[in-house]
Amino acid sequence: MPEQIQLPRTLNEYYDRARESMSPQNRAYFLAGAGDGRTMSANESAFDHVSITPRMLRDLGGGSTETHLLGQRLASPFLIAPFAYHRLLDAAGEVATATGSQAQSIKMILSAQSSVDINTVRSAGDDCDWFQLYWMGSRQTTIELAQMAVAAGFGTLVLTVDAPVQGVRDREIEAGFELPHDVSAVNLARFSRPRFAPLEGTQSIVFDRIAHTLPTWDDVAWLIAQVQVPVLLKGILHPDDAARAQSIGAAGVVVSNHGGRVLDRAPATLDVLPAIVEKVGPDYPVLMDGGIRRGVDIFVALAMGAKAVLIGRPIVCGLAVAGDLGVSHVLRLLRDEFEVAMLLSGCATIDDIRRDMVHLKL
Amino acid sequence: MPEQIQLPRTLNEYYDRARESMSPQNRAYFLAGAGDGRTMSANESAFDHVSITPRMLRDLGGGSTETHLLGQRLASPFLIAPFAYHRLLDAAGEVATATGSQAQSIKMILSAQSSVDINTVRSAGDDCDWFQLYWMGSRQTTIELAQMAVAAGFGTLVLTVDAPVQGVRDREIEAGFELPHDVSAVNLARFSRPRFAPLEGTQSIVFDRIAHTLPTWDDVAWLIAQVQVPVLLKGILHPDDAARAQSIGAAGVVVSNHGGRVLDRAPATLDVLPAIVEKVGPDYPVLMDGGIRRGVDIFVALAMGAKAVLIGRPIVCGLAVAGDLGVSHVLRLLRDEFEVAMLLSGCATIDDIRRDMVHLKL
Amino acid sequence: MPEQIQLPRTLNEYYDRARESMSPQNRAYFLAGAGDGRTMSANESAFDHVSITPRMLRDLGGGSTETHLLGQRLASPFLIAPFAYHRLLDAAGEVATATGSQAQSIKMILSAQSSVDINTVRSAGDDCDWFQLYWMGSRQTTIELAQMAVAAGFGTLVLTVDAPVQGVRDREIEAGFELPHDVSAVNLARFSRPRFAPLEGTQSIVFDRIAHTLPTWDDVAWLIAQVQVPVLLKGILHPDDAARAQSIGAAGVVVSNHGGRVLDRAPATLDVLPAIVEKVGPDYPVLMDGGIRRGVDIFVALAMGAKAVLIGRPIVCGLAVAGDLGVSHVLRLLRDEFEVAMLLSGCATIDDIRRDMVHLKL
Amino acid sequence: MPEQIQLPRTLNEYYDRARESMSPQNRAYFLAGAGDGRTMSANESAFDHVSITPRMLRDLGGGSTETHLLGQRLASPFLIAPFAYHRLLDAAGEVATATGSQAQSIKMILSAQSSVDINTVRSAGDDCDWFQLYWMGSRQTTIELAQMAVAAGFGTLVLTVDAPVQGVRDREIEAGFELPHDVSAVNLARFSRPRFAPLEGTQSIVFDRIAHTLPTWDDVAWLIAQVQVPVLLKGILHPDDAARAQSIGAAGVVVSNHGGRVLDRAPATLDVLPAIVEKVGPDYPVLMDGGIRRGVDIFVALAMGAKAVLIGRPIVCGLAVAGDLGVSHVLRLLRDEFEVAMLLSGCATIDDIRRDMVHLKL
Repeated sequence: MPEQIQLPRTLNEYYDRARESMSPQNRAYFLAGAGDGRTMSANESAFDHVSITPRMLRDLGGGSTETHLLGQRLASPFLIAPFAYHRLLDAAGEVATATGSQAQSIKMILSAQSSVDINTVRSAGDDCDWFQLYWMGSRQTTIELAQMAVAAGFGTLVLTVDAPVQGVRDREIEAGFELPHDVSAVNLARFSRPRFAPLEGTQSIVFDRIAHTLPTWDDVAWLIAQVQVPVLLKGILHPDDAARAQSIGAAGVVVSNHGGRVLDRAPATLDVLPAIVEKVGPDYPVLMDGGIRRGVDIFVALAMGAKAVLIGRPIVCGLAVAGDLGVSHVLRLLRDEFEVAMLLSGCATIDDIRRDMVHLKL
Repeated sequence: MPEQIQLPRTLNEYYDRARESMSPQNRAYFLAGAGDGRTMSANESAFDHVSITPRMLRDLGGGSTETHLLGQRLASPFLIAPFAYHRLLDAAGEVATATGSQAQSIKMILSAQSSVDINTVRSAGDDCDWFQLYWMGSRQTTIELAQMAVAAGFGTLVLTVDAPVQGVRDREIEAGFELPHDVSAVNLARFSRPRFAPLEGTQSIVFDRIAHTLPTWDDVAWLIAQVQVPVLLKGILHPDDAARAQSIGAAGVVVSNHGGRVLDRAPATLDVLPAIVEKVGPDYPVLMDGGIRRGVDIFVALAMGAKAVLIGRPIVCGLAVAGDLGVSHVLRLLRDEFEVAMLLSGCATIDDIRRDMVHLKL
Repeated sequence: MPEQIQLPRTLNEYYDRARESMSPQNRAYFLAGAGDGRTMSANESAFDHVSITPRMLRDLGGGSTETHLLGQRLASPFLIAPFAYHRLLDAAGEVATATGSQAQSIKMILSAQSSVDINTVRSAGDDCDWFQLYWMGSRQTTIELAQMAVAAGFGTLVLTVDAPVQGVRDREIEAGFELPHDVSAVNLARFSRPRFAPLEGTQSIVFDRIAHTLPTWDDVAWLIAQVQVPVLLKGILHPDDAARAQSIGAAGVVVSNHGGRVLDRAPATLDVLPAIVEKVGPDYPVLMDGGIRRGVDIFVALAMGAKAVLIGRPIVCGLAVAGDLGVSHVLRLLRDEFEVAMLLSGCATIDDIRRDMVHLKL
Repeated sequence: MPEQIQLPRTLNEYYDRARESMSPQNRAYFLAGAGDGRTMSANESAFDHVSITPRMLRDLGGGSTETHLLGQRLASPFLIAPFAYHRLLDAAGEVATATGSQAQSIKMILSAQSSVDINTVRSAGDDCDWFQLYWMGSRQTTIELAQMAVAAGFGTLVLTVDAPVQGVRDREIEAGFELPHDVSAVNLARFSRPRFAPLEGTQSIVFDRIAHTLPTWDDVAWLIAQVQVPVLLKGILHPDDAARAQSIGAAGVVVSNHGGRVLDRAPATLDVLPAIVEKVGPDYPVLMDGGIRRGVDIFVALAMGAKAVLIGRPIVCGLAVAGDLGVSHVLRLLRDEFEVAMLLSGCATIDDIRRDMVHLKL
């Protein structure tokens, strides 16, 4: 019926409608944070501690939201964050997301845990050419996954480093979340994952098994050296780790706490961003995700030093509410709001969005 | 019935009654802020971070609330803020507001978006002799509007500079706000507004069309030079912009974020006021609006450096609840409360309301 | 019925029961603050910004809560604050309060607006020998009132200086509070109050009439010189005013904002107390009222520099719930809690309650 | 029925289920704080002012949660806090708790107010070999109690010093809490407690009776010298008291405010911990309790300087919900969460959990 397919008119309506319409299991998986959700909430509330002081009567003619990152042109300084199993939200899964992002010329980062074949997604949109991967337990398996992505036409890799184990996902446990039989990480099926010997005596699954399969800085340096495309490290929260990424040849870092889904009590990404940018210098590509719900939040993140931001849960909501059309609409609303924020604050170009436009408050 | 026309007895009763009685559309248009309403809320809560330290046993005989601004006498240091379309709230529209303000000898600033003919409003009250205008897309159209106001007997102009585009007015969109057929900006009908060529390719309505119709400091300096009356700039939030206004001959500035209706995450006006006053010096007319709900708030704003304040939403509420009588009553309550605040804090004159009467707290 | 006369068992039960059982008019008059009640709330929440660091294993044998003030012995360092019209709460009015305070050897300050004859109250208890008065519009009338109190056997006077006019008592207006015909300030009936000529033109009742009847520092110095008993000034919030009180011979000051009932946005008394004590020195009697709801709050106020505190609303509640018995019980609970706080924090005497026992937190 | 014995799946489910299922009396006794519960709440909220900055890509192989304290091995750096009357929560009482803790190799500190015979509890688990005691009114009685515990096989004593009298336990009074006839401190029955002569005149039960039965630093030094086992002092909140404990030969201190059950307005334990550790040096055993509800909180407490923490209310909840199995499950969840927190933040050993892993925020 027509009433049911009427699109939300505002971002908040998307968020509200998605929260209402998702199953409790999906709500727990996609929208809840780890533990008590404090880091997830902190990501959002960190923006409330920043104000933008707009400047008046500047010449704003001919400005634009265009920017460049790693030599690539971005129509607007944000990308779709990688997240798993889009088919939980829409039958077309990652293809729907790629189609929606393509419609707005916004880049999408495909998750290694895509629930649709990587080549199918890649062919759905020119702008879906970044690929996110986890360490696969060994150098060999990890490079195989990376090579598969490059072969499929993904020209930029994003290695997630902040989730060596799942966080304390109590909301999922309480909701009884599990993958339905027809949704899986189809692109990972071919790769072997570590198998663990039985624990002996007082051994710990965490320290005596999992820990031995995790990458170190040396492993990641090796990976970067092997692949022919830029690799960004996602999940950096400490300036020294950002500097280390820079020193081993990472093409950039994504300041991220995994949307608050791993370590509850990790800091809000916006709060740690400035010190990281200061450490690696203004030219090194530092991206950020976490807590961005409005176009004006993109402005704030850029003013605090991010070159671009990743958008996660708003896309989840757009996809859940209206598939590819929802994704496209959410991206359009974010882009429009961001343009309005630029105009209202007197910024014609991305370079005008400087640190002195924003102020911290208590 | 008598019960229905009983006036509210307190300011909060006006605010509550107005909120209850207004249509959802009007509530969204007049009472909501842009985005998530954070700047609108911050305007109000900023006052909670200030305390007044009263002084005892001073000689208070023969004091008064009188002050002078731009050579004009004000009975009390506040004016009615300009806002559009009073006829949405009361059939007599801006005439009702002017009548109510005249009854209390409080000046009213008429909005260019008045829903009643400018001359009709002007003749409704001697104290309605300030006129607010927007840039009209070109120097020629703007000066024509200014000249129309001066010719109608408005001796002070207030140019709003902080709203080159509408903010993100989600509450209005969600409520489906639109002007009824019989309410419009009748005084602007005669003026041509910019017409835009169709967008090409990736062009942006904001940057490739609207931005070219916006004024710069040079345009405003030109306007000030053209008109024979004082011009204040409304919407200043940065000290450097206030200094620039001063340098191009503006008669004063109004520190304002448009009541939180344009850029959500702009700072609270009270928070930025002191630095602006310090920048332009104690003699330059700096006015303020935003968040004033009580007579004691007027005291605080003056102590923080404002020469006078503009009152918006309380007047909206008075007009919505009881037309001209409501406007008059709200003004009376504000004035009485302000007098009480002066007496209780030991201030006999406006000049006694100094910075050292107030303290910031966390 | 027995159930109905069962006394509350805890202070909070007194406060809750009183709030439930009082008429809306009395609730507005006795329990609400001026304006939006922010100063009243701030008085209470100021205590939440202080923590007590207890010390362990000290020798606490033979300690006590006894202290001396103006050469008078106090069993515990608190007094009943003056407030008007006790007969609104209990038929026996101020006699009930005096009886209850006498039972606990706690001093009571009788309000000039007592609803029972001054001599009747005075004879109800030895510990009811402090009298509070307002300036009566002229030196002559004020000294007459003071002399009446001294003649009745009140050996200490407390002059309230912070309420030259009523505050913005919206809650009372909204509740329609007015004195019933059989309750009045019986002791003031004999005194003439200022009568005002009609206002002319733009004259202000506040500045052109009331302000001329208010006392100055010279008037108060004159009063102090006239009477033979110690006079404290109540309602001081600024260090310089405390120093001025000291210099004109006041026996002490009461740091007070009238329980938040006059100037809303005045600071919390606890917040301004330390600077006042520092200004007048550790030996000058500085008392405090406002926000004390627990015995531990008395400890905090003393650690922040008060020599003693005045208790208002808890007594209102005790009186409202159970008359003289309720007053006595509330005083007992406060005293017991205060003793427990001393023991738990390692203080055997009032002098042990020093500034280094408490810490401010954000 | 099977549904009813289904265990909670997460810690919060334990806390919620316990709160729902406990009697109002037990809820008041075990879960409420003294006074208005501010210190109890502050214990928890103090953790919200700390964030953990995780480090990435470190080598985590072969790590563990093992630590050593007083020469004893702890499987994980936390112990079960002593609390009274476990039989109020489960028929098997302290035996159930000891059984549950033994299953997870977590040490339990038995309260002197155990509701089960000390030898019975001791034999229920090797890891139940710490004993908590209060001062018993005299040196003689206290040493007898200590000797009884040592004779029963308890090799570490914890002397509680912060509760010379009960706090203001209003919640218990309001709920009418009293011990049922079949629950008592069975191990204390044989010891004589001080008997008080009747009070005379204005004497105070607190200062003229109880205070004379309390220990001083000299008494505690004497006790430590008498016993052959390590004695920790529990209830220290001031650095100077910690230093004094160190100087008289205490084996360590437990930074504690008794779970907020004695002095309301005492500081949160986490807030005072760093200054205490700084005072006594990094090698002196400083433990902490209060506010720990999650494994990640243990991480925070250790980073702020604690050598180990005591867990109270989570164990109360586990015991109340499912007896020994509930205790074991809660301990397992805490331990798993703590391991996850270590891995996610890049710490392989307890020594890696350093002060620079955490940051204070406003």
